[in-house]
Amino acid sequence: MNHDALYSQLLVKTPAKMVLVVLDGLGDIATRSQNYLTPLEAASTPNLDRLTEDSAQGRMIPVAPGITPGSGPGHLALFGYDPIEYQVGRGVIEALGLGIDLKAGDVAARANFCTLNEKGIVTDRRAGRIKTEICEALCAELSKKVKKIGDTEVIIRPGKEHRFVVIFRGKGLEGPLTDADPNREGLPIPVVKPTVARSAKQKKAAKLVADFYKSALPVLKAKRPANGFLMRGIAHQPAIPAFVDRYGLRAAAIAVYPMYKGLSQLVGMKKIEGPETIAQQFERYLTEHDNYDFFFIHYKYTDKHGEDGNFEGKRKAIEDLDAALPILLRKRPTVLAITGDHSTPCSMKGHSWHPQPVLLTSECSGSDKLDRFTETGANLGSLGVFEAKHLIRLMQANAKMFDKFGA
Amino acid sequence: MNHDALYSQLLVKTPAKMVLVVLDGLGDIATRSQNYLTPLEAASTPNLDRLTEDSAQGRMIPVAPGITPGSGPGHLALFGYDPIEYQVGRGVIEALGLGIDLKAGDVAARANFCTLNEKGIVTDRRAGRIKTEICEALCAELSKKVKKIGDTEVIIRPGKEHRFVVIFRGKGLEGPLTDADPNREGLPIPVVKPTVARSAKQKKAAKLVADFYKSALPVLKAKRPANGFLMRGIAHQPAIPAFVDRYGLRAAAIAVYPMYKGLSQLVGMKKIEGPETIAQQFERYLTEHDNYDFFFIHYKYTDKHGEDGNFEGKRKAIEDLDAALPILLRKRPTVLAITGDHSTPCSMKGHSWHPQPVLLTSECSGSDKLDRFTETGANLGSLGVFEAKHLIRLMQANAKMFDKFGA
Repeated sequence: MNHDALYSQLLVKTPAKMVLVVLDGLGDIATRSQNYLTPLEAASTPNLDRLTEDSAQGRMIPVAPGITPGSGPGHLALFGYDPIEYQVGRGVIEALGLGIDLKAGDVAARANFCTLNEKGIVTDRRAGRIKTEICEALCAELSKKVKKIGDTEVIIRPGKEHRFVVIFRGKGLEGPLTDADPNREGLPIPVVKPTVARSAKQKKAAKLVADFYKSALPVLKAKRPANGFLMRGIAHQPAIPAFVDRYGLRAAAIAVYPMYKGLSQLVGMKKIEGPETIAQQFERYLTEHDNYDFFFIHYKYTDKHGEDGNFEGKRKAIEDLDAALPILLRKRPTVLAITGDHSTPCSMKGHSWHPQPVLLTSECSGSDKLDRFTETGANLGSLGVFEAKHLIRLMQANAKMFDKFGA
Repeated sequence: MNHDALYSQLLVKTPAKMVLVVLDGLGDIATRSQNYLTPLEAASTPNLDRLTEDSAQGRMIPVAPGITPGSGPGHLALFGYDPIEYQVGRGVIEALGLGIDLKAGDVAARANFCTLNEKGIVTDRRAGRIKTEICEALCAELSKKVKKIGDTEVIIRPGKEHRFVVIFRGKGLEGPLTDADPNREGLPIPVVKPTVARSAKQKKAAKLVADFYKSALPVLKAKRPANGFLMRGIAHQPAIPAFVDRYGLRAAAIAVYPMYKGLSQLVGMKKIEGPETIAQQFERYLTEHDNYDFFFIHYKYTDKHGEDGNFEGKRKAIEDLDAALPILLRKRPTVLAITGDHSTPCSMKGHSWHPQPVLLTSECSGSDKLDRFTETGANLGSLGVFEAKHLIRLMQANAKMFDKFGA
């Protein structure tokens, strides 16, 4: 019997309200140049400090030891799905990031305009990084010319600069396919192939991509410098068991950035539109309190500043969230978890594998008697170091959603 | 190669003596209303404190994150058996709790007397909670009338109030079966069915239960209010690899309560009868010291008071065990582990999923340089947070029972 089956067997309904607050890229590392403080340690966080009195802490391995996750695996793990079992292709993630509503079975590709010479050789993989407005105009033109291929709908959406996304929405399609990208200049665009030779669905998808090139390249023929395009990460949206079926929880996502709205929709969370600031997000939780059992609240700015190597910015972003926290606590949820989807150390200017700190508070979380919520404090907590995919099970336990196992 | 196979391959014989002291439900949580102390923290434990100087500490997840175990899974894990792989049905646990010696293959059911109306509808699932003496008389009558069904022996033993246990001892039987219990009043007693449709052994067991009803119900026909009975958790005693074969250790159980004697017998430990107090249990260890390699010593009162929400009682129970500890240490075992089978937080008045603290001491345990053995201290220990099923392997390692793996 696998663990998921056991959890399902023991599941009971409760009126509990659960909130998962994700400070994207929250985790950090203490380095000499930062005076051995992390942004979380350097920040003034009176509200988190107060929560800590009645909280358990620990650190979470986002995927596996040493693995640095992207936003997709990072969030799937937080939602309780094994991020190695449920892999979401880059095309799908890119489409979600552009706010495109995908359906299960849609095949999505990251694409970008490139420059080809008269022999079809790629001479600039990014077409001189054309401006976003040019990309938008080219995508509009392509969309107008190529709406369908056979019975399959083709959806083209511009991104920033030379980037865009192509979605194939039809029956019997599947990824992943190999890339239509030589990955360096001086070579032609390769023909895409199934990654599983015998898959009829992948074959159909590969044929579609080839047909798309046949229809789309002529539209660009006279353009300069964007007279061609490359496609990568061609994958279908996987069928992921719905959050409500897996946990018995009606879930809502209160996120600002399209990517995180999209990731929450992958597991069937209801997307709540409107809020722009963390204070507004917490306010919205208050008004939606009775309509859902589980709230995923996403905060981007910790990651953003981490990526920029901006220690002060990340510290300030944490303080801003802390200042807004009393709004959330006006209707204190039965179970509240505050964490990141991964670490984004300022000194590394990017995502990392370092376990992110997590704080869990409920009437039965117990107290680890720590003064603050920090990476160093979390090292001393009762939750230990554990895989992020288990967090939701601990939240459910704290909400008394599991019967006793065995007598 | 699975881990068990590796451990077996590396196993060497040593003259080591190992003792596992289980304070049932030892773990607790620090809450505001308890002044942020657990009973273990509040207790005065000079003998445990002294042991701590030369001990490693950690915390153990009884089954899996967020899963609250019953006594069965909690102890199987301590005995080193994966509690999800080796599941023991409720009927079996109930029979063990009544002190019935089960054999592998016995099918056991929790039963209780109920009241039926003239149409066979259950009108009171507990027959007005008849007195234990009445239950005993009814069971005696049933035992006299129904001794065998075909070649299968039927054993009926009374419990408290309306509760009893039925054992079917024959060849080719297997559980689990569905319940002969509608789980609410106003419905007839359902006919039990195999849970695996194609299992011939389950079919045979289901037929036996039906035949048992045919023979037993007429005996009760004229009784009031106990003119019927329900059966639940109908399961067979699983074949569990014997402790001695798995670990190369002759094991004895020094327990007071029948349930824990029974659980130790499931894995083939020798049941040592007689002791009533923890001091007597430790005394008995001294006299049996040369006869066994491994001693499981079970202490119930920490759990009992935890279940009652009696903080002072739990604290006192810990102090009582601490006071008796010098007896055990007169023949200090090569390896001594002191832990619980799970947590039973006073504030929750029941078992919980919170990892229980564990103390491990031997000549090569090392010292974690902690002052005391507590939940908060254990968070800082060198053993970390780990699954309880691994404890016995750590004990074996400390007893130098494993050869080096690889060169």
